[in-house]
Amino acid sequence: MSDPVVPPSPGRGLSRRRLLGYAGAGAAAGTAGFAGGMGAARATDAPAVAHAFHGRHQAGIVSPAQDRLHFAAFDVTATSRRELVRLLRGWTAAAAAMTQGRPVGGGAPLPYDSPPADTGEALGLPPSRLTLTFGFGPGLFRDADGHDRFGIDHRRPTALRRLPHFPADNLRPERSDGDLCVQACADDPQVAVHAIRNLSRIAFGSAALRWSQLGFGRTSSTSTSQATPRNLFGFKDGTDNLKAEEGSAVDRFVWVAPEDDPGARWLAGGSYLVARRINMAIEPWDRTALSEQERLVGRDRRHGAPLSGGSEHTPPDFSTRGSHGTPLMAMDSHVRLAHPSHNDGVRMLRRGYNFTEGNDELGRLDAGLFFIAYVRDPDRQYIPMQIKLSQQDGLMEYLQHTGSALFAVPTGVRRGGFVGETLFA
Amino acid sequence: MSDPVVPPSPGRGLSRRRLLGYAGAGAAAGTAGFAGGMGAARATDAPAVAHAFHGRHQAGIVSPAQDRLHFAAFDVTATSRRELVRLLRGWTAAAAAMTQGRPVGGGAPLPYDSPPADTGEALGLPPSRLTLTFGFGPGLFRDADGHDRFGIDHRRPTALRRLPHFPADNLRPERSDGDLCVQACADDPQVAVHAIRNLSRIAFGSAALRWSQLGFGRTSSTSTSQATPRNLFGFKDGTDNLKAEEGSAVDRFVWVAPEDDPGARWLAGGSYLVARRINMAIEPWDRTALSEQERLVGRDRRHGAPLSGGSEHTPPDFSTRGSHGTPLMAMDSHVRLAHPSHNDGVRMLRRGYNFTEGNDELGRLDAGLFFIAYVRDPDRQYIPMQIKLSQQDGLMEYLQHTGSALFAVPTGVRRGGFVGETLFA
Repeated sequence: MSDPVVPPSPGRGLSRRRLLGYAGAGAAAGTAGFAGGMGAARATDAPAVAHAFHGRHQAGIVSPAQDRLHFAAFDVTATSRRELVRLLRGWTAAAAAMTQGRPVGGGAPLPYDSPPADTGEALGLPPSRLTLTFGFGPGLFRDADGHDRFGIDHRRPTALRRLPHFPADNLRPERSDGDLCVQACADDPQVAVHAIRNLSRIAFGSAALRWSQLGFGRTSSTSTSQATPRNLFGFKDGTDNLKAEEGSAVDRFVWVAPEDDPGARWLAGGSYLVARRINMAIEPWDRTALSEQERLVGRDRRHGAPLSGGSEHTPPDFSTRGSHGTPLMAMDSHVRLAHPSHNDGVRMLRRGYNFTEGNDELGRLDAGLFFIAYVRDPDRQYIPMQIKLSQQDGLMEYLQHTGSALFAVPTGVRRGGFVGETLFA
Repeated sequence: MSDPVVPPSPGRGLSRRRLLGYAGAGAAAGTAGFAGGMGAARATDAPAVAHAFHGRHQAGIVSPAQDRLHFAAFDVTATSRRELVRLLRGWTAAAAAMTQGRPVGGGAPLPYDSPPADTGEALGLPPSRLTLTFGFGPGLFRDADGHDRFGIDHRRPTALRRLPHFPADNLRPERSDGDLCVQACADDPQVAVHAIRNLSRIAFGSAALRWSQLGFGRTSSTSTSQATPRNLFGFKDGTDNLKAEEGSAVDRFVWVAPEDDPGARWLAGGSYLVARRINMAIEPWDRTALSEQERLVGRDRRHGAPLSGGSEHTPPDFSTRGSHGTPLMAMDSHVRLAHPSHNDGVRMLRRGYNFTEGNDELGRLDAGLFFIAYVRDPDRQYIPMQIKLSQQDGLMEYLQHTGSALFAVPTGVRRGGFVGETLFA
């Protein structure tokens, strides 16, 4: 938490960013991991240049959501605990360097015939607020045959199981699950892609890339300093998202507490990451009347105000009825069904991204939302809501979940330590 | 060329950009299409907010290369010339709006039951220097059976044919060719994706998306105001690229002159766009010694200087030999083979982008370079060089061309006109 902000290397032409002597929202509860060298600075919309890697929690959770994503899931091929720990140590060292804008290996000279330690495509680029957030899938603890792979199965968190099959899921195994995950977020996609590539390279022989996902635009704000972005339905998304500045709510809904799971105390200070690849039926949506789109969402498109009235941040009123006696917030509207008041008061910290990956053979866009949420307990905060949404949400006519994964995200990394150290100690 | 710079809409939080009262390099020869309302401003690295859509040439060619790309190719399904022209008029109007940060349809109110005119995901985002550049493939003139589809085959440019099959090509038809293309470049990928989506939507019933390609980082500079970016081999790319400021060279190597092709005078002021999807063998490359990487490229990785000595912009000296008598610039090095001095002096304006699209079933990255070049004559400026490179370039061991297309890019659009008007007049 006490890392100084690292000056960026010289940027490239038009896209280079000013070096701001800005350190950011490091003081608010729950924002550990955000570079906070200048102490209790107010959260503003000025771009911080580098996020601290070490801290109480992993960065990339409550850090203000960066613009771009490269997410990767890996299958572990290592056969010994020692080899797995070596991988995690290697990843830790590389992440500590790359998040500060330094190359993997520190740029030290190599023997003449060596491949370079760093692949090079981010040389000269600033850190671009890169965060690297690591998670452990259920398969890391026991394989498909129930075999305890690395002597850690007795410490597997109770909630760390494959997500259930939800109604209307159309999951592709090659886009789902994984033993390890890395969420790379940055304002420059080349910096995020460089990070995943170099971590994949370090993993060679110990873990293989299973699937990865690029996101080109964030669909959530995680700080009150950020404006609400839009998803590919054209609507503001995440207006009521949990924000870093809501310290007690972050503690209540994001961070695992020591008493949550006595068999997995190593996860205290960590979280769970829910990943869902949600394809959107772009073309049918685009032929739907604006009024129907707004009814399904429960908000107006331009301002994001609830249909019960007010402006974007006015709480929705679910009881108000229109002239025909129907609720202004339709019974099957997304906002109604997902609202905490209809979900036992639970909230989650969303951190999703829009994606597009070309088109299918009929010319339809392969596009949608790569949903990421951080929760303290997926059994309470995600699964019940998703069962309900998949059955009742009017938007489901335009959505198809094609990928799914759940990871336990260990706590922050101390200096000299490594990602997941509390699990292997 | 006389458009004022349009103020951006309010940006979103951390990523919003300052409105600079900057108009840019409009005065230099060959930079028509770049917003030039303030006259002979010097080209600097300050970001222009909006590029003018109308002008002597289409924007997006010599305009300083933006950071992100969404490229799309379409199959025309229209059966009449009238319907095709209607599509081009619709695209023109939408492009004129979107490049200035305005929604498709101008935001005019619609009847209650109408789908929205604009899909909405770019509402509130600044223009982000969006350019939309349109091209016509050979299939627009005659179909696979040699049938003159729209009464324009007698005006087909002589050089507008499918590119030949080069040695070592491994082309996928579903990533190649197309009757129409749109190159959307912007500094915000959400703005570029929004543009392609809305143009696809306008085309519904008249043209269907055939393939599309996202690029996350530019690999070329097209202005002396830009630093040289890096490709996924980690090397600076396009050091010697043709730049907008080289007015007479741009006229010589980019813009088609009226006398070039007497049967296709409509293309005067336009250009040819060569698109090649080049997959890179990332993992083998990353296991290659840095010294060998540099030998294959012909430049050092850190600075981009030719191995014959000097700094990045020092001209390579192909005659200098090292202590063992071998040329410092290896005979099979990319820079040697591609250099104008070994290609009849021809040059091209490159405008490519790095791409990554997940991984294959073995965990290897599906990544590489989406090569785009603008040339006055592909038969002289691209095909001979590519035949040679595909046979002799040492880098080819790490490259595979998986997509290919050639388009004729019509001249700029006048106010009240439409893209390709000179062809259909």
